[in-house]
Amino acid sequence: MKYCSQCAHPVSLRIPPGDALPRYVCDHCQTIHYQNPKIVAGCIPEWEDRILLCRRAIEPRYGLWTVPAGFMENGETVADAAARETLEEARAQVRDCSLYALFNLPHISQVYVLFRARLPRPEFGPGTESLEVDLFTEARIPWDRLAFPVIRETLRRYFADRRNGTFPVHTGDIAPPPGWRGNPA
Amino acid sequence: MKYCSQCAHPVSLRIPPGDALPRYVCDHCQTIHYQNPKIVAGCIPEWEDRILLCRRAIEPRYGLWTVPAGFMENGETVADAAARETLEEARAQVRDCSLYALFNLPHISQVYVLFRARLPRPEFGPGTESLEVDLFTEARIPWDRLAFPVIRETLRRYFADRRNGTFPVHTGDIAPPPGWRGNPA
Repeated sequence: MKYCSQCAHPVSLRIPPGDALPRYVCDHCQTIHYQNPKIVAGCIPEWEDRILLCRRAIEPRYGLWTVPAGFMENGETVADAAARETLEEARAQVRDCSLYALFNLPHISQVYVLFRARLPRPEFGPGTESLEVDLFTEARIPWDRLAFPVIRETLRRYFADRRNGTFPVHTGDIAPPPGWRGNPA
Repeated sequence: MKYCSQCAHPVSLRIPPGDALPRYVCDHCQTIHYQNPKIVAGCIPEWEDRILLCRRAIEPRYGLWTVPAGFMENGETVADAAARETLEEARAQVRDCSLYALFNLPHISQVYVLFRARLPRPEFGPGTESLEVDLFTEARIPWDRLAFPVIRETLRRYFADRRNGTFPVHTGDIAPPPGWRGNPA
């Protein structure tokens, strides 16, 4: 951020009076521009003994597999967002979203909120952000071609739960990749 | 938003190519400025048969009671944020945050993520955003002076769970107040 979105004057990164963290503050109109984490909403669509995965047609991780998920929009519930992403990425309508996992990725200021969801019929197809979409039994999950560590962790716990027949809500923190040099903003 | 935070030129509210929703788009550098929901992180600090509440010293809802909660910051986990807010608002250190509730407030684009947390000692005091802080048994909860419907709903479920001796993770949507005329952005 370089300029104030309210008055177009330059902003400075400094700690406002009474605050504890540096913020982008407008030197002209004094507006404080807060930046906050984003929610990535997604789901595990279930059909019989299989789950739906999408192969990414976009960066990052082009060509790798993931569950339908994406940034939550203003005006939605988290479950709305998960269902919308599934419709957009996999052209599939899910029902009965049930909270399954909340994972923190503090190094990139994201919170993943993932649901289990019911796919009433095995009807799906690639949306514009997917190369292909398919149903997978546990034995056929492409573990070495999953797009993100948070997806691997979610699916690992999911199949363990399925063997146990119980689905508690999971929480956890996902560490940055080795050698990570980014910043969380 | 009136001006681009990257180049200071005016922005327009329009649907970018390939998108489905109106965004603030810079007519000069073409940057798309996405706006997303915010997470409010908080907790129910427990000490013996009592919980900690804060009386607000700030608007909105000045003078009314709430659990410690506030906007999650970049670089935090949700539990980090809940513990930080408790330290700031109630000068209390909590331990063992355990996910308890996720509530959507789509009319204001907020998601509340609330934990149960352990207060190791009954040591607390008002931070700068609180008029007073105190421990309450269920019988003494100020039900008619709670700050927000989401807090009333959370505490109603919490004390019902306490009678049952089980604390499942709750989810739900909070409706806008009667006559609500705002917009979710």
